[in-house]
Amino acid sequence: MDLRTGLPVVGMVGGGQLARMTHQAAIPLGQSLRVLVNATDDSAALVAGDVRVGDHTDLEALMAFAKGVDVLTFDHEHVPHEHVKALADAGVAVRPSADALLYAQDKGRMRERLSALGLPVPRWRPVSEGGESRAHASRQSTPSSSITDVEKFAEGVWPVVAKATQGGYDGKGVWLLDGPDEAKRLIDTGTPLIVEEKVPLVRELAAVVARSPYGQVAAYPVVETVQQDGICVEVLAPAPGLSDESAVEAQQIAIRVATELDVVGVLAVELFETRGGLLVNELAMRPHNSAHWTIEGARTSQFEQHLRAVLDYPLGDTSLTAPAVCMANVLGGPPDIPMGIDERLHHLFAADPGAKVHLYGKAVRPGRKIGHVTVVGDDPTEVRARAARAAAWLHRPPATTH
Amino acid sequence: MDLRTGLPVVGMVGGGQLARMTHQAAIPLGQSLRVLVNATDDSAALVAGDVRVGDHTDLEALMAFAKGVDVLTFDHEHVPHEHVKALADAGVAVRPSADALLYAQDKGRMRERLSALGLPVPRWRPVSEGGESRAHASRQSTPSSSITDVEKFAEGVWPVVAKATQGGYDGKGVWLLDGPDEAKRLIDTGTPLIVEEKVPLVRELAAVVARSPYGQVAAYPVVETVQQDGICVEVLAPAPGLSDESAVEAQQIAIRVATELDVVGVLAVELFETRGGLLVNELAMRPHNSAHWTIEGARTSQFEQHLRAVLDYPLGDTSLTAPAVCMANVLGGPPDIPMGIDERLHHLFAADPGAKVHLYGKAVRPGRKIGHVTVVGDDPTEVRARAARAAAWLHRPPATTH
Repeated sequence: MDLRTGLPVVGMVGGGQLARMTHQAAIPLGQSLRVLVNATDDSAALVAGDVRVGDHTDLEALMAFAKGVDVLTFDHEHVPHEHVKALADAGVAVRPSADALLYAQDKGRMRERLSALGLPVPRWRPVSEGGESRAHASRQSTPSSSITDVEKFAEGVWPVVAKATQGGYDGKGVWLLDGPDEAKRLIDTGTPLIVEEKVPLVRELAAVVARSPYGQVAAYPVVETVQQDGICVEVLAPAPGLSDESAVEAQQIAIRVATELDVVGVLAVELFETRGGLLVNELAMRPHNSAHWTIEGARTSQFEQHLRAVLDYPLGDTSLTAPAVCMANVLGGPPDIPMGIDERLHHLFAADPGAKVHLYGKAVRPGRKIGHVTVVGDDPTEVRARAARAAAWLHRPPATTH
Repeated sequence: MDLRTGLPVVGMVGGGQLARMTHQAAIPLGQSLRVLVNATDDSAALVAGDVRVGDHTDLEALMAFAKGVDVLTFDHEHVPHEHVKALADAGVAVRPSADALLYAQDKGRMRERLSALGLPVPRWRPVSEGGESRAHASRQSTPSSSITDVEKFAEGVWPVVAKATQGGYDGKGVWLLDGPDEAKRLIDTGTPLIVEEKVPLVRELAAVVARSPYGQVAAYPVVETVQQDGICVEVLAPAPGLSDESAVEAQQIAIRVATELDVVGVLAVELFETRGGLLVNELAMRPHNSAHWTIEGARTSQFEQHLRAVLDYPLGDTSLTAPAVCMANVLGGPPDIPMGIDERLHHLFAADPGAKVHLYGKAVRPGRKIGHVTVVGDDPTEVRARAARAAAWLHRPPATTH
């Protein structure tokens, strides 16, 4: 407990934009987020008041960070599973728990568990039973048997999707395999994989909920996530034209996952909408890009909600603040733009006084998420156009392309 | 400029809750507020990433703080006027300027200037022409002539209001004088004073605007401020039942003051509503308690707006996010409450998932502002009842009075 405030201390491992925005949400709760960052110029390190530097793959650094922390939570999934377990064994309140987090860290385990629960997932199978991520299984299969498995799985349905079981994000760690040759080349790299059918999707949705240790679950309105090259570029809340029936189904899937997997904190369930119904794509157990819109678009932001959940406070109102909300990610533009970010902000604010900008303080690299913009309003088409225009402007002002 | 982010650096003198909430608003703008605090456990020092400790009455400390800052602004009015001038003379971009700030630091000067502009103020007069705050006048008057002046001013209208020209807040520095004996006792303390008629007010209002160096002014909806013992306890936005005519008049007064006094940043104009019209009570040139409701209740919070203004960015949308908003201050309760603030939060969140709590991380002292609660909704009566209940609960849970 922080003796100055009389409130418990939350420590978050990771210094990215999620930790940055969680700190922002911590301030009104009387909190000051303690963050474990890799470097002092990490996104969250620039703004937090209680910054510790250390390697999130180093158990000793994690243990030192956890000292004096009442609740430990995460900005990413990259803390080794055995370290999360060791922290819990040492008496640290780790939220979500190691057991829950495993399903967000390992896509094979996740698919296995969701299949066992009877939840809808794409047709899938593990590739290499002996892969690093499958330490529980015996090391019997060989690359050659793996390729046979993939060929059998994919027969007549090529192309299929391969996913690294661990560490993928923003389109990284996902491959579209056109045939056995490509599959063999990928398998030969030794990356632990699963393969999945290429789902004929109508669009992608996300159902975001939060769950507290007490067991309370609060669900946000279901959103549409618009992807380009595997990166989420826009989120539309609520998902335009989604039937009440499908929205409730998506929320129920997320609530069931949160409850069955004993998730604590925010859970984002990424979904494929197909003509045949909904399928679960990915899980994330932390604040998630698909709910950044909640900062202005919902009565309780996902960042406040995550804190309330890990602190076991009753959860906040998830209702919309306006009929239509759009969040557009700002991606880093080409390195040679003459107009700096400060000048771009001037122009944007003049053009759209209602656009809500979020910059992450990150060095600009082409395609990297460096911020986002949210617009709320009455008309979904209008808010989407405004958010997209604002994000495009911050990415690369049109005048600079002359 | 911050070389890591490519954005200008804003430094705020003062580490109270206004700096704390300004830092919160700075984060999405890609900023990290640099704060000059008196102590490392000041409200803003607990949450900001760039904290410098120093005395705001020490010019050397102020000069050191201003180094590397692109814009300097304030959390309070207590930096000596000559220091603000010295900073500007040294080339620091001080916003608001020393000349503007003077009118928020000295009530005599403010009354004089507003009277000269023909703006409506209560009937008033300065008490001691030789007071510290009136260094421009010759030291000719004496306490005995002062009391004669006050008696003449107050004849037939006792009681009258006396105000310290400098340093008052939350009802401190304001006295109701019943007659000449009380007036004499107060004058004999040597405090520089003005006297004013006791205005027969209907209620108090506040018109909050922001102005940029470019000259753009943005006005928030006019609010009602509810006072108890000189402390603002509730703010109702928009002011219930206020005619459009009066609302526009109040906004025009604030815009005129901002423009004529060359204010940069947020300006709060506290007003008396009387049967005869509006009268200006006080000015504040910084984010102000009467606009805390804007964090959830307006598209752009006053804290973001203050930053946009001092950075000379175009200002943000000031419109309401809901038809009715109420902010209630949380005052420190008695010291012997058995239920800690953490447990109180649990109960409050369970009782009202929509109440938005803001805690300032300040030590609890009876009557001290330690936080606030905002509720937004459709019905003014309902949001007011909810906000008041939430603030009362955080002040002193009913169960603990058994």
